[in-house]
Amino acid sequence: MPTQIPATALQLQSLVKADQTVELSLATVEVPEPGPGEVVVRVEASPINPSDLGLLLAGADVAAAVSSGSADRPVVTAPLPDAAVRAAQARVGLPMPVGNEGAGTVVAAGSSPAAAALLGKTVAMAGGGMYAQYRCVDTFLCLELPDGTPAVDGASSFVNPMTALGMVETMRMENHQALVHTAAASNLGQMLNRLCLEEQVPLVNIVRRPEQEQLLRSAGATYVCNSTSPAFLDELTAALKETGATLGFDATGGGKLASQILTGMEAAASAAAGGYSRYGSAVHKQVYIYGSLDRGPTELTRNFGMAWGVGGWLLTPFLQKIGLDGMARLRGRVAAELSTTFASSYTDQVSLVGALQLDAIAAYSRQATGSKYLIIPSR
Amino acid sequence: MPTQIPATALQLQSLVKADQTVELSLATVEVPEPGPGEVVVRVEASPINPSDLGLLLAGADVAAAVSSGSADRPVVTAPLPDAAVRAAQARVGLPMPVGNEGAGTVVAAGSSPAAAALLGKTVAMAGGGMYAQYRCVDTFLCLELPDGTPAVDGASSFVNPMTALGMVETMRMENHQALVHTAAASNLGQMLNRLCLEEQVPLVNIVRRPEQEQLLRSAGATYVCNSTSPAFLDELTAALKETGATLGFDATGGGKLASQILTGMEAAASAAAGGYSRYGSAVHKQVYIYGSLDRGPTELTRNFGMAWGVGGWLLTPFLQKIGLDGMARLRGRVAAELSTTFASSYTDQVSLVGALQLDAIAAYSRQATGSKYLIIPSR
Repeated sequence: MPTQIPATALQLQSLVKADQTVELSLATVEVPEPGPGEVVVRVEASPINPSDLGLLLAGADVAAAVSSGSADRPVVTAPLPDAAVRAAQARVGLPMPVGNEGAGTVVAAGSSPAAAALLGKTVAMAGGGMYAQYRCVDTFLCLELPDGTPAVDGASSFVNPMTALGMVETMRMENHQALVHTAAASNLGQMLNRLCLEEQVPLVNIVRRPEQEQLLRSAGATYVCNSTSPAFLDELTAALKETGATLGFDATGGGKLASQILTGMEAAASAAAGGYSRYGSAVHKQVYIYGSLDRGPTELTRNFGMAWGVGGWLLTPFLQKIGLDGMARLRGRVAAELSTTFASSYTDQVSLVGALQLDAIAAYSRQATGSKYLIIPSR
Repeated sequence: MPTQIPATALQLQSLVKADQTVELSLATVEVPEPGPGEVVVRVEASPINPSDLGLLLAGADVAAAVSSGSADRPVVTAPLPDAAVRAAQARVGLPMPVGNEGAGTVVAAGSSPAAAALLGKTVAMAGGGMYAQYRCVDTFLCLELPDGTPAVDGASSFVNPMTALGMVETMRMENHQALVHTAAASNLGQMLNRLCLEEQVPLVNIVRRPEQEQLLRSAGATYVCNSTSPAFLDELTAALKETGATLGFDATGGGKLASQILTGMEAAASAAAGGYSRYGSAVHKQVYIYGSLDRGPTELTRNFGMAWGVGGWLLTPFLQKIGLDGMARLRGRVAAELSTTFASSYTDQVSLVGALQLDAIAAYSRQATGSKYLIIPSR
C-alpha cells in the first residue's frame, strides 16, 4: 500500500447505549488493505440525507443533546424517547458507521482489473459508512465520475438520483401515467422535476411555502400546489384531473397529506368516469411513503373508494427488483447527467468535527427544505 | 310466460334526494320477460350484508330516520350528514335497487339451453337488486343449488363464501403463508375459520368479546386474540410469530387495528431475522381493508419498517383478476360445501315491509357481530 495512506483514520460512529442515549463520536479505525475486487477511497465529500438521520440519531431528542470530549474529538450524547428505545433495541452496544453515499479519490486498488482500472480516479460510492476519512468498498459500489468532476459534485450520485429515477420507473412498472410528489422543493424534488420535464412525465409538485412554489415554477414546473393554501384540495384535484396522476410519493409520512392525495385522485377519477359507482372508481390509486418528515401517524379518511393502496417505498428493494441490468442502465444515466438533471446543491459544508457541533446537528436534523449539509472529511 | 307470474311485483328502492335525505320504499316494478340467456327467479331469501348497507343507507343518520306511508308500503326518510352528501352526489334522484345476493326458484327461463335447464330449479344469484319479489338475471350470475337445498340455505352463496375463498387465494397469489382476520366471529369470519382449518392455513382471529373467543375456539380455532385485552399486542405478536402470518384482512377499517397488526407482524419478522436492520425487516407486511365497521380514519403509526402496504380489497376486482376459470372453480366448491364450510346463520328473518321498520333498520345498521338479517320477500 502506498505510503501516503495512513494506517488508521477517523470514522463517525453512532452508538445506542443501554442507558437510553445515543452517543456520536469520531473513532479511530484501521484503514484496511483492499481485497481483490475492492478499492480504498479517500472520502472527500458525503451528504447528510434525510435517509441518514435514522441511523445517525436513532430517533434521539436532539434538543436535549449535550457535548463533551475535546474540540477535535467531540462526543455528543442525546436521550432517546421510549418509542425510539424500542425501535433501537437491536443496535444497543453496536457502534454504527454512518453515511449512505459519498465521493472521493481511489488511493489503493485490489488486484482485479476492475479495481486496478479505478486507481487515481474520482468515484462516487454507495454502501454506508461514508462519514469517514477513508472507505474500502467493492468496485461494484463505485461509479467512476467523468474526468474532471470534483468529488463535491459527485457526492450525491446515488440516493437522490436513483430515488428520482426509481419513482419514474415505478410509475411505468405499475402502469400509471403521471406522478405526485410532496416536499417537492427538496434537492430530490428539484431533481425529479427536471427528470419529469425531460421525460415528459406530468408531475404534480406539493410544497408548503410560496418561495418553494416560485423555485419550482422558475425551474419549469407546470403543477405546483401549496398544501397550506385554503383551497389546497380543490387546486390539487384540478391538477390531478389535468395530469391523470394516480401515483404519489410522499416524503412526509405523518398527518393527512397521503389521504388528501388519494381523495383528490378519487375525485378526479370519478369525474372522468361519470355516473355513480357504489364502491368508488375502479381506478387504482397509490401513494408510497418514502420518508418521515412528519413522524406522527398517517391518517387515512378512506373517502376514496376501495381501489387504493398506501405503502412504504425504499430504494434498495426497488433496485433489487430491477436487477443488475436495470441498475447499470440507471447508473450510466446518472453519470452522464450529473451536472444537469441530477445536480445537487448544499447550503453548508462541514468537517467531521463540524458535523458533531450541537448547532449543526440542530440544523440538519430539522430536515428543512432548502437546507442541506455536506461533510468534507478531509477538513 | 306461465300465468302464476304477476305482471308487477315489489322491489325495495333507496333514493337519495336533493334535500339531503335518503328515502327507502317499496316500488311496484314490472316483472320482465327473460331474454334468451336469462331466467326470472322468485326471490325467496336475501341477506343484509355489511356490503349492502352503503347502497341501502347512503351513509344516512339512521338514528334520525322517520317513517311515513302505510303499514304495507312504509316509506323511511333519513337525513344525510355532509360527508355522505358529497359521497352520494352522483346518485341523487336515481332510485337504486338493493341487495347483492339471494336465492329462489326459477319460474321462467329464456330460450338458451343454459336458461331452459334451470327452469324449476332453486338457484343462488349475484348481481344486485335482490330485495325484490322477482328478479330477472343472466344465467351466468346463477349458481344451481344441490337438489333439495332450501333457498334460505343458499341465500349467502356469493358474498361471504367468495370473500373467504378470495382471502385464501389472495394469500397464495401474493406469497404469504398465513392469515390474520378481524371481526373474526362474523358469519364471514366463522366461514374463513372453517375454510382455513380445512386448507391447513394458519389463521389469527381477532375479536372484541370473550364470547366471540369461545365461539371460535369451540369451532376449532387455534389463534384467537381479543383486541380489548390489555396484553393484546403481545398476544397478537406471539400468534404472528407462531403462524408467520404477513397478510391481514381488516373489516373494521378505522382506528389503530390495521396499524397494530403491522406492528405485530414487524416484531415477529424482526425476531425471526435477528440482528439490527435500519429500515426494519425486509419481509413485506400487508393489510387489506375490506370493510368499514369503524368509519373513523385509519391511523398508521408506521413503526413497522418500510416493507408494508395497506389498501382496499373488494370482491369484484379480485374475481376479475382470477378470471372465468377461477370463478367457476370457486363457485363449484361453494355449491359442494354450502351446508358445511360455507354455511350461514341468521338471527332475524323479515319481510320486505319488515326490513323497512325503524327498529329493524336500527338493528342491522349497527352491523353487530352475531346479528344477521335475512329478507324473505315472499312474506
